[in-house]
Amino acid sequence: MEVYLDNNATTMVDPKVFEQMKPFFCETYGNPNSLHRFGAGTHPKMMEALDYLYSGINADDEDDIIITSNATESINTVIKGVWVDEILNGNKNHIITSEVEHPAVTAACKFLESQGVSVTYLPVNEAGVLEAQTVKQFIKEDTALVSIMWANNETGKLFPIEEIGQICKEAGVLFHSDATQAIGKVEVDVQKANVDFISFSAHKFHGPKGVGGTYMRNGVKLTPLLHGGEQMGGKRAGTVDVASMVGMGYAMHLATTPMALAYEDNHVRKLRDKLEDAILELPETVVIGGKENRTPNTTLISIRGVEGESMLWDLNQKGIGASTGSACASEDLEANPVMNAFGSDSELAHTGVRFSLSRFNTEEQIDYAIEVIVNAVKRLRNLSSSYAYAPETHKSGL
Amino acid sequence: MEVYLDNNATTMVDPKVFEQMKPFFCETYGNPNSLHRFGAGTHPKMMEALDYLYSGINADDEDDIIITSNATESINTVIKGVWVDEILNGNKNHIITSEVEHPAVTAACKFLESQGVSVTYLPVNEAGVLEAQTVKQFIKEDTALVSIMWANNETGKLFPIEEIGQICKEAGVLFHSDATQAIGKVEVDVQKANVDFISFSAHKFHGPKGVGGTYMRNGVKLTPLLHGGEQMGGKRAGTVDVASMVGMGYAMHLATTPMALAYEDNHVRKLRDKLEDAILELPETVVIGGKENRTPNTTLISIRGVEGESMLWDLNQKGIGASTGSACASEDLEANPVMNAFGSDSELAHTGVRFSLSRFNTEEQIDYAIEVIVNAVKRLRNLSSSYAYAPETHKSGL
Repeated sequence: MEVYLDNNATTMVDPKVFEQMKPFFCETYGNPNSLHRFGAGTHPKMMEALDYLYSGINADDEDDIIITSNATESINTVIKGVWVDEILNGNKNHIITSEVEHPAVTAACKFLESQGVSVTYLPVNEAGVLEAQTVKQFIKEDTALVSIMWANNETGKLFPIEEIGQICKEAGVLFHSDATQAIGKVEVDVQKANVDFISFSAHKFHGPKGVGGTYMRNGVKLTPLLHGGEQMGGKRAGTVDVASMVGMGYAMHLATTPMALAYEDNHVRKLRDKLEDAILELPETVVIGGKENRTPNTTLISIRGVEGESMLWDLNQKGIGASTGSACASEDLEANPVMNAFGSDSELAHTGVRFSLSRFNTEEQIDYAIEVIVNAVKRLRNLSSSYAYAPETHKSGL
Repeated sequence: MEVYLDNNATTMVDPKVFEQMKPFFCETYGNPNSLHRFGAGTHPKMMEALDYLYSGINADDEDDIIITSNATESINTVIKGVWVDEILNGNKNHIITSEVEHPAVTAACKFLESQGVSVTYLPVNEAGVLEAQTVKQFIKEDTALVSIMWANNETGKLFPIEEIGQICKEAGVLFHSDATQAIGKVEVDVQKANVDFISFSAHKFHGPKGVGGTYMRNGVKLTPLLHGGEQMGGKRAGTVDVASMVGMGYAMHLATTPMALAYEDNHVRKLRDKLEDAILELPETVVIGGKENRTPNTTLISIRGVEGESMLWDLNQKGIGASTGSACASEDLEANPVMNAFGSDSELAHTGVRFSLSRFNTEEQIDYAIEVIVNAVKRLRNLSSSYAYAPETHKSGL
């Protein structure tokens, strides 16, 4: 049996989404900017896709949603746009973010630091969450932007976006939230949340890879990252990838109807909890950040004495795909940065395994996964010298 | 009959290319960065795609080809990377380009000008071509980059890239060529041409929209446009769009084999010439820039007394897709900037119609198009007050 439990890394394109995309490769292939029938033929489905996107995040008609190539581009668009407008050509020089953002935010901020910008990386609490009041304390006169993720990619922990949005609004500071791991898992309402920008990526909610979006509140100006033609009202140049845009729109629709979110919150959560509870029955296992206030599909579990990579290898042999953390950082073998941020000791930081489910997982798959995981933990603990020889007192505390 | 003659705006995805892409939506959907079988399953076809890309432009194994979302992103990557490295953090402050580049180059340069960079926009000669010696004259001590297109999108005119490359190499100046309109139409050999960077887009050579590439010569360093994960060796972050990369690779393969380029140079050229010659039999028509040294698929024809937009409308009614110029600029109603650059008078600047063919056009289609075009010209000239009342002397000169 094959069981894919790495949906925070990427998801399968929903076959219904792919059906919507298909005509735009070899049939309705015109450039949407062209005036003739081949170009105009793309418009109705593009409009429909935009409607789905607006409705999926409850954007106001006056707001902008810019189609990008992924969340990384969206994030770079916001952070570097603010850099150009508010810092290079303005009088601000400070950005606030957290220690547990996706590498796109962190690397863009590191780049800005190399250009003389001051960046504050706020720590998270024991539950892996950034407290809104912490943000408030660090906002300064010259703060240009606060960028805080909506949900953490590794733990699924939800951040207090509404509160942070309110604080930023009162302080007159722009607020961006990387909502990549939130859309389709919990309600994302840009109006309720007082965000100026959000970033997202279709392939995290059963849309295609290679397409994402940037939400921009009405009236917020931003120098584009991609200069060129007048596509997207001049806010993001480049020929629009019609098939992908249509796919993202339909995927957004399928993922954000009240029924879809209820399914996620009930059925997917039930399967995640079943898997998690079965692993927690093993001694010396712990959910990183605890169980409260998470996306319903994610669990990051530390299994003392079991090196994460070895665990993945065992699971892979049995057809199960999981992760030690962000796929975007998996090419380096450093410890999971989120677990480091949580203050885990260095041994534990290598013991995290992330399981992230989706609406395509079945109970049968989860039962099979539990069996495989329990056997793998037993086998690996038998092999693990550090586990076998660790003093009992060391074994029991996280 | 439907006849698509706007292949410089975008092309149909070759059904053979789409076949290659299909498995990567709903079957082999893993994140290539993931360590498990779902991720690793994407690697063989990605490697094959890279091989096709390297071979298609004759890149050296040590060079880099970065997968981007389109040529606009590739162009912005190069121009803004050079800006950051050589200008913001270096001691250069000058860029050379031409007056007839794609809007992506022009708009990125305009942005740099707004940031204090000096940009020289070189004019083209009567044949619509930038002379290499002109570039040489304008290179200064502080020139960071020369960016000149390989082939013009509107006229198809080929620029002396090898010569310009040699000049830049001797002067120690970085050289970027936007090869978007050249690949698949003529041979693009990055080693022969002495380029440091080229940009290209799959949807111009029967690959999918939403994917492009940046070639970077070995040893050339560039601050990335998209910071984030370690994808593409840290040179372009963001989850790789596997389906699109595979599609682009296969499209590159199909478009750049010696046989494919010979087909373009013989069969496509023959059809283009047949169409062009038939239009040129009408009085007061002229090929903008002349017939020499063009991509085999393109003709930009001025038909005095016929407003380009009206012509397109007539053609569209009969199922024919053509263009007044770049689709990327078609949303504004200004005169064709290339025709302006050629020094056409303002009336003529609105009379250009671009026909751009592909390997999917048939002789039957061209015969039909000729009939429709000739009738449309007659009809529109009958309606055109400026044509009817213009003095004979004005009518005959371009």
